Amino acid sequence: MANIKLTIQYEGTNYIGWQKQPKGDSIQREIEKAIKQITGEEVDLIGSCRTDSGVHAIGQVANFHTNSSIPPDRFMYALNSKLPEDISIVKSEEVAKDFHSRYDAIGKRYKYLIYNHPIRNPLYRRFVYHVFYPLDYHEMNKGIRYFIGTHDFTSFMSANSNVDNPIRRIDQSFLSREGDLIIFSIEGNGFLYNMIRIIVGTLVEIGRGVMKPHNIPHIIESKNRELAGPTAPPQGLYLEKVYY
Amino acid sequence: MANIKLTIQYEGTNYIGWQKQPKGDSIQREIEKAIKQITGEEVDLIGSCRTDSGVHAIGQVANFHTNSSIPPDRFMYALNSKLPEDISIVKSEEVAKDFHSRYDAIGKRYKYLIYNHPIRNPLYRRFVYHVFYPLDYHEMNKGIRYFIGTHDFTSFMSANSNVDNPIRRIDQSFLSREGDLIIFSIEGNGFLYNMIRIIVGTLVEIGRGVMKPHNIPHIIESKNRELAGPTAPPQGLYLEKVYY
Repeated sequence: MANIKLTIQYEGTNYIGWQKQPKGDSIQREIEKAIKQITGEEVDLIGSCRTDSGVHAIGQVANFHTNSSIPPDRFMYALNSKLPEDISIVKSEEVAKDFHSRYDAIGKRYKYLIYNHPIRNPLYRRFVYHVFYPLDYHEMNKGIRYFIGTHDFTSFMSANSNVDNPIRRIDQSFLSREGDLIIFSIEGNGFLYNMIRIIVGTLVEIGRGVMKPHNIPHIIESKNRELAGPTAPPQGLYLEKVYY
Repeated sequence: MANIKLTIQYEGTNYIGWQKQPKGDSIQREIEKAIKQITGEEVDLIGSCRTDSGVHAIGQVANFHTNSSIPPDRFMYALNSKLPEDISIVKSEEVAKDFHSRYDAIGKRYKYLIYNHPIRNPLYRRFVYHVFYPLDYHEMNKGIRYFIGTHDFTSFMSANSNVDNPIRRIDQSFLSREGDLIIFSIEGNGFLYNMIRIIVGTLVEIGRGVMKPHNIPHIIESKNRELAGPTAPPQGLYLEKVYY
């Protein structure tokens, strides 16, 4: 039995998210269906993490076990011929029998795109968070450094999430600009539910002057979701890379 | 009566194109409907040119005459509140009574995006032409210079189009690269039906080695559509700017 690792890109717009649920189309289910079509097997596809409806992936990772004789590197082509156009397998390879996409992940990188322009851009509407009031890039840039390090991120987690341990380590957190796009990149050992979207919502509050960069340490220490900014919308978020 | 000039962005995916037709949603009709909703007037919206289904615009220009008392620069906001999300007015202004978007245009700039990668990218699928076999960028770059100047472009026009004069002047024609994207930019005094898409289809034939750069002058001289390459798909094409 072979353990196949897939690297996956998708546009999350038309899905309820990565994870299969009783109702609605999920990316996980679409790929499991495609695997069934080419191998006849009902597999459990294990993703590195969930992504919400509207969230995109450039480098999601998942694995499954199969008795199929399809060469590991050919799964990519076979699956892409069955998958809808908004999901694409960009790599398939055989990995160690005990490799587990979720448990073995040691880090993840995400990016979040903010389109900062007074007028909406129809070409971007599924791919960015449109903020029409002016944002102070330099103030936002001062704010993000405070996230780096190991912190209890309870303030940056959806209020009703259940986690045993809200402590995460952030290794990188930086901003860049391309024209009217502000790009936030963040890398760490893991992220709580909605954590990046709440961080972005907080950065936007800093960018419009409602919060100050030096408020961040206090918000972190408070362990109080209400002190952080609102949850930014999903369509600006991209899972870029999973580290093993 | 005021003559209002609009600068318009749109994603062409869900439309039959710019021009209204008996059946199907067109960008022209959507904007005329929005104008009616805010002014009560049935106007003729004059576009600088047609764009096909799937073709996008970053700077389409159109004008219409109105008795409305809405300040010219506010039309943008009023129309955007009525328009679907895949159409956006990015500028509205009053112009001379006799300004005509189509007759007064002296030039246009388009760009065309080719995604050159063995695997499709789901995030790009509505916005690029995906060419999965490797393209020789340098050969393509040698080819494009031959389009510059004033030529009879009959070979690069849909075989069944009706035009009095197939002569056009191309002022700029250049390629650039960003990662796996090849970006073709072209500027001229006007373009025949499908001309840019046939030029791109020909460039791709050069890029994959089926045609040679020095074939271009011969193809132009032949005035024979069959000697040029196929028509590239619409979704890579963007109307960038109209010059007056």
